Amino acid sequence: MAERVWERFLTEQDRAHLAIRPGRRRGFGEKPALLLIDLYRWVYGDKPEPILEAIKKWPSHCGMDGWNAIPKIQKLLAKARAAGIPIVHTTGLDGAGVAPRSHRREAELEADKDPEAQDRLRRRYDIIDEVKPLAGEAVIRKASPSAFWGTPLIGHLNFLHVDTIITCGESTSGCVRASVVDGCTYRFRMMVVEECVFDRHQATHAMNLFDMNQKYADVLPLQEVLDFLDGWQGSRRTKAGDNEASTDKVPAAAIA
Amino acid sequence: MAERVWERFLTEQDRAHLAIRPGRRRGFGEKPALLLIDLYRWVYGDKPEPILEAIKKWPSHCGMDGWNAIPKIQKLLAKARAAGIPIVHTTGLDGAGVAPRSHRREAELEADKDPEAQDRLRRRYDIIDEVKPLAGEAVIRKASPSAFWGTPLIGHLNFLHVDTIITCGESTSGCVRASVVDGCTYRFRMMVVEECVFDRHQATHAMNLFDMNQKYADVLPLQEVLDFLDGWQGSRRTKAGDNEASTDKVPAAAIA
Amino acid sequence: MAERVWERFLTEQDRAHLAIRPGRRRGFGEKPALLLIDLYRWVYGDKPEPILEAIKKWPSHCGMDGWNAIPKIQKLLAKARAAGIPIVHTTGLDGAGVAPRSHRREAELEADKDPEAQDRLRRRYDIIDEVKPLAGEAVIRKASPSAFWGTPLIGHLNFLHVDTIITCGESTSGCVRASVVDGCTYRFRMMVVEECVFDRHQATHAMNLFDMNQKYADVLPLQEVLDFLDGWQGSRRTKAGDNEASTDKVPAAAIA
Amino acid sequence: MAERVWERFLTEQDRAHLAIRPGRRRGFGEKPALLLIDLYRWVYGDKPEPILEAIKKWPSHCGMDGWNAIPKIQKLLAKARAAGIPIVHTTGLDGAGVAPRSHRREAELEADKDPEAQDRLRRRYDIIDEVKPLAGEAVIRKASPSAFWGTPLIGHLNFLHVDTIITCGESTSGCVRASVVDGCTYRFRMMVVEECVFDRHQATHAMNLFDMNQKYADVLPLQEVLDFLDGWQGSRRTKAGDNEASTDKVPAAAIA
Repeated sequence: MAERVWERFLTEQDRAHLAIRPGRRRGFGEKPALLLIDLYRWVYGDKPEPILEAIKKWPSHCGMDGWNAIPKIQKLLAKARAAGIPIVHTTGLDGAGVAPRSHRREAELEADKDPEAQDRLRRRYDIIDEVKPLAGEAVIRKASPSAFWGTPLIGHLNFLHVDTIITCGESTSGCVRASVVDGCTYRFRMMVVEECVFDRHQATHAMNLFDMNQKYADVLPLQEVLDFLDGWQGSRRTKAGDNEASTDKVPAAAIA
Repeated sequence: MAERVWERFLTEQDRAHLAIRPGRRRGFGEKPALLLIDLYRWVYGDKPEPILEAIKKWPSHCGMDGWNAIPKIQKLLAKARAAGIPIVHTTGLDGAGVAPRSHRREAELEADKDPEAQDRLRRRYDIIDEVKPLAGEAVIRKASPSAFWGTPLIGHLNFLHVDTIITCGESTSGCVRASVVDGCTYRFRMMVVEECVFDRHQATHAMNLFDMNQKYADVLPLQEVLDFLDGWQGSRRTKAGDNEASTDKVPAAAIA
Repeated sequence: MAERVWERFLTEQDRAHLAIRPGRRRGFGEKPALLLIDLYRWVYGDKPEPILEAIKKWPSHCGMDGWNAIPKIQKLLAKARAAGIPIVHTTGLDGAGVAPRSHRREAELEADKDPEAQDRLRRRYDIIDEVKPLAGEAVIRKASPSAFWGTPLIGHLNFLHVDTIITCGESTSGCVRASVVDGCTYRFRMMVVEECVFDRHQATHAMNLFDMNQKYADVLPLQEVLDFLDGWQGSRRTKAGDNEASTDKVPAAAIA
Repeated sequence: MAERVWERFLTEQDRAHLAIRPGRRRGFGEKPALLLIDLYRWVYGDKPEPILEAIKKWPSHCGMDGWNAIPKIQKLLAKARAAGIPIVHTTGLDGAGVAPRSHRREAELEADKDPEAQDRLRRRYDIIDEVKPLAGEAVIRKASPSAFWGTPLIGHLNFLHVDTIITCGESTSGCVRASVVDGCTYRFRMMVVEECVFDRHQATHAMNLFDMNQKYADVLPLQEVLDFLDGWQGSRRTKAGDNEASTDKVPAAAIA
């Protein structure tokens, strides 16, 4: 593999350590799902802009890195839909009266009474149209960085017999990282699609990919994941005639 | 205390056992919250009816026991609001594409294409107007019996420093019981208000009150809880001048 | 099926309700595990005794109902081992300095300075020899009624791709019930083996079987579960030659 | 504050971003606890050694950074004990037959049949004598990076009414980070003592401190935490005469 994005941030000692104890691949399992994390208005704003400009109005905007990831995420999502694997979207939980995790920030946001600021706040957790959930795809609303904490995600994936989670979205160092740690902890095989995750800080984007790849996940190029889904789709198709596929459906399986 | 509702269901040996090892009270803590569990259309239908009649259209209807509890729950809710303790409502999570817990039942319900049946299904998780949440009260949507599982409730209560949970709602043997077990497990002091919980089966209503009182909670008459809230409110009021009360607010505390 | 144990506790209205809306079976899935809950000294004491006598020294003793269940649990355990399904034992977490769930009871127990009482306390969470865990079987120590809460059980089962949990042990109304509710919530197919669970109170034993059968599990006779395991074992054996079975092993699967 | 350890790893754009949107302090709450994460033999080996030498025998050794942190952690621990705040140690769960999170590594370790390697494996989760738990301090065994997942920690802290968690231990990018994210998610005020956490990679140590400080915690110098504990201890002492302090004890509080 070519130089990884994190290599330029490593110290000399880090490089020497990794030369002695390199990481290894986990590999895909047999029942993958796609998890799209927090692809909402709050990090995109209303248009592509350089990050230092964008954060004046949208404090969590991720700049061009977010916008540039869209066509790649769309490619991944289209392939996952074609393969027929379960799709799960996450976004923020709003308006439920639940104590937020980061209270200071919430208070500050709500204090801004400018109508445009209020409008941005109201729309912040809308998933962007470019990756809009389809009917039948799960949409999980969370009040925490991890897609698992305080949500029924583990039950949902368990019901579907998922063993592998392909992740994309943002931020690499926030909700993606937290979800990957939890997913690994729950004993899923975690896959992070490198071109399909992004962050508002460059160094932490790179180093969180490093951490995940070292400890919790395989950080893979998009093409490799697309190839896997092509192969997976194929192998499932050859099973036509048996009804295993239908056991994945909700709630059809339940009738039996 | 007068004869408890469960006593007539106990066997002779059970009575002899309890005579040797009677239960004990837990007692209230210092920071109570009120939890109203699943007071939604699905168990009330559109009108008070005897249960055997009501379940023809509303399969989960709890009959007159549910309707008769309303004025008592309203009294409890009004007192909790007057005392200023945190209020949390729960209802079902719908339309999120999450695999349901009880698949067979879901499938059967969705198979009924009668427009009236579809309308009932659409309205099933609406909290009834009689105990409608006010702005600022938390509303937790869950895909499980327990108010804790798959929800951010523990984080919410932890933020508020709650140590005591006063529960009401339905069903005694289902979501109330599951929430009480979890609440006790999380080391809260659990209180069940006897006149404010109900069930669709009489024997299991009684025996779940017995179980909770034996193992996980104090099952108390409404009047005792109202008296506690009166006293608690009073003790808080005498603290006027200090700003402790304001540390409970979301998200005002966060500004500090 | 013959009359169920709970029927004599139901009211007339309960019976009429159930005649209109009878329960249904869930059915086994494809990857079962056996969960043995809290078969420890504390509920057995050192010998079989009538419960009213036994609780003088062993306050949580379950009397002859516990002792009578042993040969049946042994039969179930032997069959599960022969079939090669994953086995999980639970017992209490002791000596870790973790705040207990039922503080009053703990305090009372520890206050008894009689050396024999202290010895009983020290041995309380020893799993009885009759169902002693074998090397390679998981032993989960818990500080809560549910086998899931505060333990890595969900990760363990997820790693093994388990979809069905066969439960036995005690008490029906306590740790069995709590584990069954959680297991169902996590979207496992829960099976309760009727002759292999027991309680210290008769009415609540019966009514918790009723509740679990109505809402969360199939409550089955031992013979039916033995037959299932025979069949399952058989169906697996015919797959000899493929290495699917080995994917269940820990940590052998991990090498791949 | 002087230059932070992460600054040299940031890109120019990262610095510009932070100049516009600097982080803020959370601040301590009122009921702190100390959490010591994974200070076990496995990362220390039997003696201080440069990391590139040490990992030949102890693959998870953290080199001199771990050994150099010991006197600072001891100072923190001594102060916390003097202040009387709750102390919680974590270590790995071993010998329970639970599927490990990182299967490949486990398999590789167990494959090494050299008696010295087996001995190191057997001792790996022994907490080092320098910070040995005292009677009454909680010791949590975990099978995951986070101190919360699969453990009763949240119940324990909830029972003690803790609102602030002071963390130290290792690794910054692994178990410390995972525990801090979970603690913040559970709505605790998280504090990371900078000199008392360490890692086996330098860049990721620095960048995880950055992430935690940005999103989930206050990353503080040891002296500031010692000063806080001095002050906290003092303020509690002035309350002598009321019995509030005793409500923190396990299980004495339970008697009431």
